[in-house]
Amino acid sequence: MARKIILDCDPGHDDAIAMLLAHGNPDIELVAVTTVVGNQTLEKVTRNALSVARIAGITDVPFAAGCPRPLVRTIETAPDIHGETGLDGPVLPDPTCVLDERHAVDLIIDTVMSHEPGEITIVPTAGLTNIALAARKEPRIVERVREVVLMGGGYHEGNWSAVAEFNIIIDPEAAHIVFNAGWPVTMVGLDLTHQALATPEVVERIAALGTKPGKFVEELLEFFGTTYRDHQGFESPPVHDPCAVAYVIDPDVMTVRRAPVDIELTGTLTKGMTVTDFRAPAPADCKTQVAVKLDHGRFWDLVVDALERIGDPELLGENPQKPGDVLA
Amino acid sequence: MARKIILDCDPGHDDAIAMLLAHGNPDIELVAVTTVVGNQTLEKVTRNALSVARIAGITDVPFAAGCPRPLVRTIETAPDIHGETGLDGPVLPDPTCVLDERHAVDLIIDTVMSHEPGEITIVPTAGLTNIALAARKEPRIVERVREVVLMGGGYHEGNWSAVAEFNIIIDPEAAHIVFNAGWPVTMVGLDLTHQALATPEVVERIAALGTKPGKFVEELLEFFGTTYRDHQGFESPPVHDPCAVAYVIDPDVMTVRRAPVDIELTGTLTKGMTVTDFRAPAPADCKTQVAVKLDHGRFWDLVVDALERIGDPELLGENPQKPGDVLA
Amino acid sequence: MARKIILDCDPGHDDAIAMLLAHGNPDIELVAVTTVVGNQTLEKVTRNALSVARIAGITDVPFAAGCPRPLVRTIETAPDIHGETGLDGPVLPDPTCVLDERHAVDLIIDTVMSHEPGEITIVPTAGLTNIALAARKEPRIVERVREVVLMGGGYHEGNWSAVAEFNIIIDPEAAHIVFNAGWPVTMVGLDLTHQALATPEVVERIAALGTKPGKFVEELLEFFGTTYRDHQGFESPPVHDPCAVAYVIDPDVMTVRRAPVDIELTGTLTKGMTVTDFRAPAPADCKTQVAVKLDHGRFWDLVVDALERIGDPELLGENPQKPGDVLA
Amino acid sequence: MARKIILDCDPGHDDAIAMLLAHGNPDIELVAVTTVVGNQTLEKVTRNALSVARIAGITDVPFAAGCPRPLVRTIETAPDIHGETGLDGPVLPDPTCVLDERHAVDLIIDTVMSHEPGEITIVPTAGLTNIALAARKEPRIVERVREVVLMGGGYHEGNWSAVAEFNIIIDPEAAHIVFNAGWPVTMVGLDLTHQALATPEVVERIAALGTKPGKFVEELLEFFGTTYRDHQGFESPPVHDPCAVAYVIDPDVMTVRRAPVDIELTGTLTKGMTVTDFRAPAPADCKTQVAVKLDHGRFWDLVVDALERIGDPELLGENPQKPGDVLA
Repeated sequence: MARKIILDCDPGHDDAIAMLLAHGNPDIELVAVTTVVGNQTLEKVTRNALSVARIAGITDVPFAAGCPRPLVRTIETAPDIHGETGLDGPVLPDPTCVLDERHAVDLIIDTVMSHEPGEITIVPTAGLTNIALAARKEPRIVERVREVVLMGGGYHEGNWSAVAEFNIIIDPEAAHIVFNAGWPVTMVGLDLTHQALATPEVVERIAALGTKPGKFVEELLEFFGTTYRDHQGFESPPVHDPCAVAYVIDPDVMTVRRAPVDIELTGTLTKGMTVTDFRAPAPADCKTQVAVKLDHGRFWDLVVDALERIGDPELLGENPQKPGDVLA
Repeated sequence: MARKIILDCDPGHDDAIAMLLAHGNPDIELVAVTTVVGNQTLEKVTRNALSVARIAGITDVPFAAGCPRPLVRTIETAPDIHGETGLDGPVLPDPTCVLDERHAVDLIIDTVMSHEPGEITIVPTAGLTNIALAARKEPRIVERVREVVLMGGGYHEGNWSAVAEFNIIIDPEAAHIVFNAGWPVTMVGLDLTHQALATPEVVERIAALGTKPGKFVEELLEFFGTTYRDHQGFESPPVHDPCAVAYVIDPDVMTVRRAPVDIELTGTLTKGMTVTDFRAPAPADCKTQVAVKLDHGRFWDLVVDALERIGDPELLGENPQKPGDVLA
Repeated sequence: MARKIILDCDPGHDDAIAMLLAHGNPDIELVAVTTVVGNQTLEKVTRNALSVARIAGITDVPFAAGCPRPLVRTIETAPDIHGETGLDGPVLPDPTCVLDERHAVDLIIDTVMSHEPGEITIVPTAGLTNIALAARKEPRIVERVREVVLMGGGYHEGNWSAVAEFNIIIDPEAAHIVFNAGWPVTMVGLDLTHQALATPEVVERIAALGTKPGKFVEELLEFFGTTYRDHQGFESPPVHDPCAVAYVIDPDVMTVRRAPVDIELTGTLTKGMTVTDFRAPAPADCKTQVAVKLDHGRFWDLVVDALERIGDPELLGENPQKPGDVLA
Repeated sequence: MARKIILDCDPGHDDAIAMLLAHGNPDIELVAVTTVVGNQTLEKVTRNALSVARIAGITDVPFAAGCPRPLVRTIETAPDIHGETGLDGPVLPDPTCVLDERHAVDLIIDTVMSHEPGEITIVPTAGLTNIALAARKEPRIVERVREVVLMGGGYHEGNWSAVAEFNIIIDPEAAHIVFNAGWPVTMVGLDLTHQALATPEVVERIAALGTKPGKFVEELLEFFGTTYRDHQGFESPPVHDPCAVAYVIDPDVMTVRRAPVDIELTGTLTKGMTVTDFRAPAPADCKTQVAVKLDHGRFWDLVVDALERIGDPELLGENPQKPGDVLA
């Protein structure tokens, strides 16, 4: 039976690919998509999410906008990596579907509470503001969620500081809430996602699909590749977010290791670090694990397969709403 | 015209008196009461709030329960001061009114958004978890609220640490959100409330009313007086929370001073301190002010007057719900 | 019998007056003067100390230079208050006496260890780098020193931040060492020294002495008055450092209160705060006390009296060394 | 020409072996040995250092005791690893040589200043209190020292916390001073030293020497092996400190990588972490490097070779001083 997930994201190039993977793969059922400030402002990433939905032919899945700013810190976005729109590169179609009226936090709570315990997996690929608020507003979701598989952090790697990763450092207090809530958390961090490089061979395979979504991904990777080369010195861009989705589809796509993980909130050099304790075997009650080693071939097979299954969906909606309408 | 307030509280002896003051005074209209973990667990303070409502004859005001724990910190309550029930001393009647179905955070948001801009004042007399979540979930309330008048903090006094006060230190991240949100904040802190002593003369005046609510307050003050004497060395107990309500009724009941206030989040000795900068005249865009000097007589006149107006309301509800029902 | 003190300073306008007070008052015996980076660089404040010695006719007292930078923090000086030389205003004579060959830290240690236990009082009127290093290098001085009476900090007032004072915030780790060492510490902080205003009447009394040191102090106060008016909004300048010396001469010149004091090292808004706990009577083993209320008249009488006793000393030294020589 | 080193240590099992390696290897000239609180109290580690000197036949090298406690933190020692004496296991001979009269800090300063610039290398294998104090007391040593090669820290490994190592976490402020002073620093941390395992083959080679110092090391490793197995789960004990000495003898015994390193002082989970930034090539002015990969065979060859050269020195001193005398 397909695993039901809520994808909480901030598209974002790799978020877009994560959404396509979740939509195209038959072992995943996307039951809700929620957005949060991160790679760009809430307005921009929400519009991007709806545009990607149109490209992918996603219908009948509620999309809801969440928090426009982190819990405590001021907003920090990533235009150097994702451009001014948050999804620079391809030309985006205007969204056609409308947002769910609920706040993302309530959509998450309602979705979890209306399903059986253990049915819903939350897959955050952005800052954890929405998830943290949901857990604080309705603490009962914590026991009811099957697990949280998130892209964020890193036990030995950082990108936004020497030892911290973007999704965590933009809202460390939210991350602290999520990692300490008590549900099982799998941290798919930079240690893993820096292995998920979109090499030229990968890009070629995707381009060869000859579909519009394939073309879209190819253009995403082209832009993403340039910014990652220019700003972080990568030869090929690391495609972070789909790794978290891939783990839900097939845990064997990566190795993981159980270990206590906590979030540093007060460090001068280490704020937002996902402090991981490997000194001893994880204690019996440890609910956190970290992703270690990616099966690169298997991972990209999943992505390409999902794109193949999506094929070339008809672009719905003759008279798409204007962006202004969408979020009004 | 009466000032409309949302009272966010954790009764709590002084919260109960604040509720009575707000209900009895004709210049205040209580439009919602919300509860949050603080002096005791959410379950206990919510039950207390409903019991006080019954004693005071408060009907037609929605009561909603909010957050059962702080944003980031673990729960810390104050049984040494408020006893095991959170309202030790008097015998409490079972509640008769039922809770609003909404979460306190949503009741706050709905109340603010359904009134005109500038109509609603929020009066928190507890940890700021609910208010912070509301401001993050629906940022538009910040511009719409008239002002926040809160009991908490202190510029030169502390009680839960050398320099921090209970309501702030139990959820400093929430306080940081509230003090930095951008709405006007009046901090009625320990500097002020340590002047609001319930002296024997005050207690006598209240006892002399001869009403059941008066008797209830007398018994509250008796218990509160004992714990404050034993645990903090006060001769008469400082009755904090009604001071915030009194300021909304009549700003002349105290002097205030404009000054920047911010919350310390990382200090080892100073976590949760409301750091107030008196070094220079407050800048033009400063939205925070702190309460300095109480008119003790005028303050207690307000309290006694409110109790007189409340009189001896009929105890409604022959078959009161059991506590278990209320929060189920 | 005169109290023997080591004056550790960073002249500095008020340091200079502290030195004159210590030299002129018969109840104090200045047994060593040590300098440390603070109001200006070590080189400048050391030269200033020697120039003041020449003005005051101080001979036979060893002067030694100490630390050119704080323990952990980078150097921060106070040119806005003390000018580019650290003693702007009067024209300074070139120094004539030469520095002791020892490092200030060693001069402090040697002086304490070569006197009887309880004989030496340390009076720091600058950052506490030298004193902290001495206590760590030779821990036995801690038991041997009679007491430390320092100008620095404040329990309710700050100047370099909302809640921290210059001498403490420039080297908080050193202050942490000194306040926690175990010797008796009297903190003469801003709460006290902001009462030690050099009013026009005070300046007039000093000018009326008609001596060169009097003229020197008058010019110091003129410059100091201007910078304090322009940068901190004081009508008359607070003359901090001599207050610490005055307390050693006559404890009745101010009231003090015993209370635990500790230094905040990790706060974002409170770094360098001298956190003072007034919540309860000081515990029996409390070794710290803070200065509360100054007898303004008695204080300035001490200063004027010291200047009178100093009179007009002959300016020794026809061929004064050049500044370059002094510190070479 | 032999490299002149000051060994600053807290023997400590691995410190003892470091001392033997430095003494026995012909490419190193031990010009001073200084001790500091760490694995055990200053008194104990100083006595141990002198006992090891007797075993190794070290004469004509000044030994000086330094700081009995860290700069800011309270004392933390490591009896679980090194036993109650700091050198549990072998029976130690009483020391015969006497301590230099100078404080370790002054011996370090005098040694550096009396040699040519670039002549002296400092090799700390303990907490960095002495080195930090020396750099602050006499800043000119920083330019004069050739380099600092220290055992401590770790870029991806911790032992005293998830991310911090003992030598750094016991005095993080001192480490902050040393890492930021401006001299070249090579951090030989846990990442490297956890490769320096004293496997059974290694222990056998040392035992086979048949000398008293060899026997001494064998017994050290036996005890050390037991505590490391019981307390940190190592099959063979990691012999940290000699790695730093080995790097001075032969840089090719390990690979190193240039990268900025700084010390976290305020983190709740990360205090004392040696935060290393590998995100980009080290900037041109980067003065820090970290040890990465050990040549295990080559390293132990150095140790065994040094022990061979030491041979079986005559145990000097018929009437050894009592421990009490040594430090009096």
